[in-house]
Amino acid sequence: MKMSLEKILFEIEKRDAALYKKDFLLTWDKTLEELETILLVAEGLKLLREKNISSKVFDSGLAVSLFRDNSTRTRFSYASACNLLGLEVQDLDEGKSQISHGETVRETANMISFLTEMIGIRDDMYLGEGNRYMREVGEALDDGVKHGVLPQRPGIINLQCDIDHPTQSLADLMHLQNEFGSLENLKGKKIAMTWAYSPSYGKPLSVPQGIIGLMTRFGMNVELAHPEGYELLPEIVALAAENASKSGGSFKVSNSMDSAFTDADIVYPKSWAPFNVMMQRTPLLRNRDQQGLKDLEKACLANNAKFKDWECTEDKMALTKNASALYMHCLPADISGVSCEAGEVQKEVFEKYRIKTYKEAGFKPYIIAAMMFTNKFEHADEVLEKLIYIKKPRIIS
Amino acid sequence: MKMSLEKILFEIEKRDAALYKKDFLLTWDKTLEELETILLVAEGLKLLREKNISSKVFDSGLAVSLFRDNSTRTRFSYASACNLLGLEVQDLDEGKSQISHGETVRETANMISFLTEMIGIRDDMYLGEGNRYMREVGEALDDGVKHGVLPQRPGIINLQCDIDHPTQSLADLMHLQNEFGSLENLKGKKIAMTWAYSPSYGKPLSVPQGIIGLMTRFGMNVELAHPEGYELLPEIVALAAENASKSGGSFKVSNSMDSAFTDADIVYPKSWAPFNVMMQRTPLLRNRDQQGLKDLEKACLANNAKFKDWECTEDKMALTKNASALYMHCLPADISGVSCEAGEVQKEVFEKYRIKTYKEAGFKPYIIAAMMFTNKFEHADEVLEKLIYIKKPRIIS
Amino acid sequence: MKMSLEKILFEIEKRDAALYKKDFLLTWDKTLEELETILLVAEGLKLLREKNISSKVFDSGLAVSLFRDNSTRTRFSYASACNLLGLEVQDLDEGKSQISHGETVRETANMISFLTEMIGIRDDMYLGEGNRYMREVGEALDDGVKHGVLPQRPGIINLQCDIDHPTQSLADLMHLQNEFGSLENLKGKKIAMTWAYSPSYGKPLSVPQGIIGLMTRFGMNVELAHPEGYELLPEIVALAAENASKSGGSFKVSNSMDSAFTDADIVYPKSWAPFNVMMQRTPLLRNRDQQGLKDLEKACLANNAKFKDWECTEDKMALTKNASALYMHCLPADISGVSCEAGEVQKEVFEKYRIKTYKEAGFKPYIIAAMMFTNKFEHADEVLEKLIYIKKPRIIS
Repeated sequence: MKMSLEKILFEIEKRDAALYKKDFLLTWDKTLEELETILLVAEGLKLLREKNISSKVFDSGLAVSLFRDNSTRTRFSYASACNLLGLEVQDLDEGKSQISHGETVRETANMISFLTEMIGIRDDMYLGEGNRYMREVGEALDDGVKHGVLPQRPGIINLQCDIDHPTQSLADLMHLQNEFGSLENLKGKKIAMTWAYSPSYGKPLSVPQGIIGLMTRFGMNVELAHPEGYELLPEIVALAAENASKSGGSFKVSNSMDSAFTDADIVYPKSWAPFNVMMQRTPLLRNRDQQGLKDLEKACLANNAKFKDWECTEDKMALTKNASALYMHCLPADISGVSCEAGEVQKEVFEKYRIKTYKEAGFKPYIIAAMMFTNKFEHADEVLEKLIYIKKPRIIS
Repeated sequence: MKMSLEKILFEIEKRDAALYKKDFLLTWDKTLEELETILLVAEGLKLLREKNISSKVFDSGLAVSLFRDNSTRTRFSYASACNLLGLEVQDLDEGKSQISHGETVRETANMISFLTEMIGIRDDMYLGEGNRYMREVGEALDDGVKHGVLPQRPGIINLQCDIDHPTQSLADLMHLQNEFGSLENLKGKKIAMTWAYSPSYGKPLSVPQGIIGLMTRFGMNVELAHPEGYELLPEIVALAAENASKSGGSFKVSNSMDSAFTDADIVYPKSWAPFNVMMQRTPLLRNRDQQGLKDLEKACLANNAKFKDWECTEDKMALTKNASALYMHCLPADISGVSCEAGEVQKEVFEKYRIKTYKEAGFKPYIIAAMMFTNKFEHADEVLEKLIYIKKPRIIS
Repeated sequence: MKMSLEKILFEIEKRDAALYKKDFLLTWDKTLEELETILLVAEGLKLLREKNISSKVFDSGLAVSLFRDNSTRTRFSYASACNLLGLEVQDLDEGKSQISHGETVRETANMISFLTEMIGIRDDMYLGEGNRYMREVGEALDDGVKHGVLPQRPGIINLQCDIDHPTQSLADLMHLQNEFGSLENLKGKKIAMTWAYSPSYGKPLSVPQGIIGLMTRFGMNVELAHPEGYELLPEIVALAAENASKSGGSFKVSNSMDSAFTDADIVYPKSWAPFNVMMQRTPLLRNRDQQGLKDLEKACLANNAKFKDWECTEDKMALTKNASALYMHCLPADISGVSCEAGEVQKEVFEKYRIKTYKEAGFKPYIIAAMMFTNKFEHADEVLEKLIYIKKPRIIS
């Protein structure tokens, strides 16, 4: 898989990608060539850093981060990506700011953007809200540019919404590409995206949705498995089926973890909230109905508890291809006996794949940087080439 | 109005401005030539950015921000300005820090300044306090420099105090210069700085004070209008009258929004707290008297409600010059039917001028950057010239 | 003491220092030559800045800060040091992040480090915890590097733990070097590290421990004095005695402030918590036993109050060598009649030495920068030489 910089530039140049000035909100808004371009640019930026060549394409400029949910790894990945390209992160903290005091999205979007190049948003709490909000911000920015308020259009990156988690799923794809040698090699491989038990509740649906929406495009055999009641957004499930039929892969939904694990090359066992809990949660959150939320949590946890056997154990792993499927997780995982009494994955299984999950996470800063890079430069290959030519050391040497 | 860079340098060079190493606390501490210099440098920095020329004059250095009141736009403007010049913002968060635990201002001012170039302070909650505090910080820094504690004297920028809001009023002036073609063209224009109804209370007096203190210096006819009881600081009102008589403009105070709007070229309808409420609020805030503050708020809101007709409506706008005065606001505005039931401005009026208010706000990062630039460099024109000569691209190209 | 850059480079080159890729957790983990190297590099970076020469050795890279206790001066010192070298600070805020939600240290340490060069940690609340935690982070990072998760090993800097406060004690040493002309001149000087009364409780033991653990290595006569019950960690007291016998100095523990002050060249009167309070506090904090903590505080304050005469007064200062010992403090001091009714130091004494304590604090950013510099570059002298050769101005000129 390890390509030379020259090869990477050549491969980028070959691809027809209209990523320039386009927000990155959903992987399925992008063509295959565009997704491949992101992976290639990410690979290129990673290689530059390994060679101690600066990729600071911005001398100044802000990158706004707006997190409406807690985050360690995405926050650091975003900060790392911005710093790598020369942008300074400025947090839009809704506690500190006046957003909550009746300001319209339209206004705030412009007010934070006068000298801003990128805006990263995590908004994954409300079904039907997060992605919609990002688009609303985008429209406000378009309006600002059109009327001469903004000298540049900040690009928007979806750092997780109610529908998709593209920086995660593409980091996952880059990890798979790395583990299996190439995207080509993923064809015909079986990936099990399964629900898993967790003592927490209310986890977004965006990771499993992102995975089935993306992996079905690469000729993989994707099986989504979950207990009844833990369905995903129906339109994404339909999309996954359609993707699979186009790409020569397959897509299947089952209610059996065993079925999904059987002969799988890759397993991705992860908890998420029941669909109808997410539906009920939105109005409760909006109305700040604390009692309602507590009651819902209680009912949900009780329901979850019926499915404690949805755990990624060594026995389950034994069902997979040669009993050695690649275990994936977006982290943090709920590890039985470590971070909770009973959770998504057995301690022994997690420990075996721990380092690989760390590596999986390590692709995210580069994926985010590549999304920014392609948003801001029409010819990514030429800019990368220029950086190689300038060859400014990242660390003095 | 659009000047070439050459013209801008020429105009800066012509002016006698002693801004070097001087804090920017009040516009009326500065001469007309100094204010013009700020506008010119701001224009120059804006042009450099348009031409993709780096204005990063600092390779390293901190810029402290101390916000004792919430802020989105000033916070981002300050961060943008610092980033544009190469300074890194470091928040002095009094929650996190030990200021509230008996440390003296004198000590803290030095402790945060060892490698600091600028300090931006917003402190607008207490009448008689904010500006005084900034001067106290300034004295502590002078002391630190005098005794060899600090290798450089960080400049202080008033990001809003109890008396003035110079980054706002100068951004407003830059907007007017832009709308009317030149500062010269402002002569004889009528500006109505009027109170307006808002369902909130306790808004600082610094914006109206800043406007009447600044605009009276450019030969404008300034009419300040507010209900009885909503007076501004008497010394600023006296200063505005004096300014007007010197500049060949006029200054009038009335209790009628209609009077102020009649034949106005520009209207600036904005809410602020009753003077005596601000006076009572200071000791209550200091004593953390929550009940007292609640009672005061209640009384104040009840009083405000008597003046709900102080709203910038289409009918009121019809009174202005050709029924088409320029509407201004520092944002966020309380828009009737949008951000509140009844507020400062009718939805239709605001919508018509919305984009212009965004543009008004867009000058602030450059005004702040110009204040820093002139504080740090004795010959701003020469440094700008050097940047043009070096011509480092802001974004790689 | 003022050396030329050439002399500094020469002195660094002469020393045998294995600081490269080593965390800085305790001064007594380092050899004398290594500590001298830190002082020399700090001096060199300070001189570069005075000469307006950039010391930005990093073009990009993050520096994580993790503060588990409040801090103004250490936070700003760390931010200043990072900025001086070109690193961008990224706060790991455990409120915002998911650390407290069952994530293991091992995982988090890797997740924040993909593009991170340095990690600064303050963790001083729990006896037996802070330093241990730092070592645990270090092991996690070693593991990450070993398995190819991390492309570089972030260095760890102890910004204060339960055992030592090396950035403070080395800044203090640099101050002494400056005041007395050289490290050599410190030989035979008497320093009184004494407890002092404060109306607060629960202050860490790390400053006095850091001072006795460091100053005994330079041939000084160190007297530690405190009321009964205010003992320090016995292993550090033993270490100090051993250091003194090796360095040709002396170390004495007494229960008399007068004894310690008598004929002292330097006095460092500072409050800390009773040893057994710190021991009881750890389990209470861990169990979030608010009532238990309150009771303990009450008992502790009552006990403290028995020792109100442990105050650094003019009378006590009269006991010192020529009645003019150098007063030191890590700040903020509890100044009687200023920051509290009765505290560590009399107003008159503090005021006399105020500026000197500020200067003492001013060395910290450079000490931290030197710790980073020597962690990241094997031949600090060569890199400094390169910076001098490149001579990029810090501020455009």
